[in-house]
Amino acid sequence: MSEDWIEAVAWNADGLVPAVAQDAASGEVLMLAWMSRESLRRTVDSGEAVYWSRSRQALWKKGETSGHFQRVIEVRLDCDADTVLLRVESVKGVACHTGRRRCFFNRLEGKGGARRWVATDPVVAGADSSDG
Amino acid sequence: MSEDWIEAVAWNADGLVPAVAQDAASGEVLMLAWMSRESLRRTVDSGEAVYWSRSRQALWKKGETSGHFQRVIEVRLDCDADTVLLRVESVKGVACHTGRRRCFFNRLEGKGGARRWVATDPVVAGADSSDG
Repeated sequence: MSEDWIEAVAWNADGLVPAVAQDAASGEVLMLAWMSRESLRRTVDSGEAVYWSRSRQALWKKGETSGHFQRVIEVRLDCDADTVLLRVESVKGVACHTGRRRCFFNRLEGKGGARRWVATDPVVAGADSSDG
Repeated sequence: MSEDWIEAVAWNADGLVPAVAQDAASGEVLMLAWMSRESLRRTVDSGEAVYWSRSRQALWKKGETSGHFQRVIEVRLDCDADTVLLRVESVKGVACHTGRRRCFFNRLEGKGGARRWVATDPVVAGADSSDG
């Protein structure tokens, strides 16, 4: 079976590319994780997001411990083939291991020396440190 | 002037983090590029996206050669502080150096061995290889 579509991806020196997950319905950017060839293959074959955990150096099926699976609606690749975009349905509406809808819950606020990151999003589910 | 907000970012071994640019109005994910401390500082100070070009090893003010500047509406940071999300207004509506609205113009189509990346988005402006 041809895997030209996998080799068309510009894998980095570690055999990984960043993958951005976006909620297909709301357009919200949920998270950024990394993918290996095998995680991209499994994602496409199963229709559910599988990433590569750089901290654990292992395949990481999103939701395996938390139940917060991501159903993949569409897979996209950028102009220079080094970033993947997944448009997903976020099962139970939670992508972040902190129990928030999305990982990008910190907003830069303030001016000059008073700038700081402020958490703007509520926690809506239990935290799961092994799914983040 | 305190730069705690910059040091709160989990810069990688090269002093960079990935930055996802999202159209603030449409929610479209436009591109992923990289930022250094200095590019994040300049982005926030100027209100226009400044990235770090890994190929040129230089600061890269988005739109400097193409005119396709990105006005920054909001800067966000994810749960583990290693990815930035910029919500931007894409001046002239073009983010990609190929002249497309967004860099993620390739969609994975087909099944099994027939899978392939298909360019789905039209070119709407002139290409500019030095802005991509």
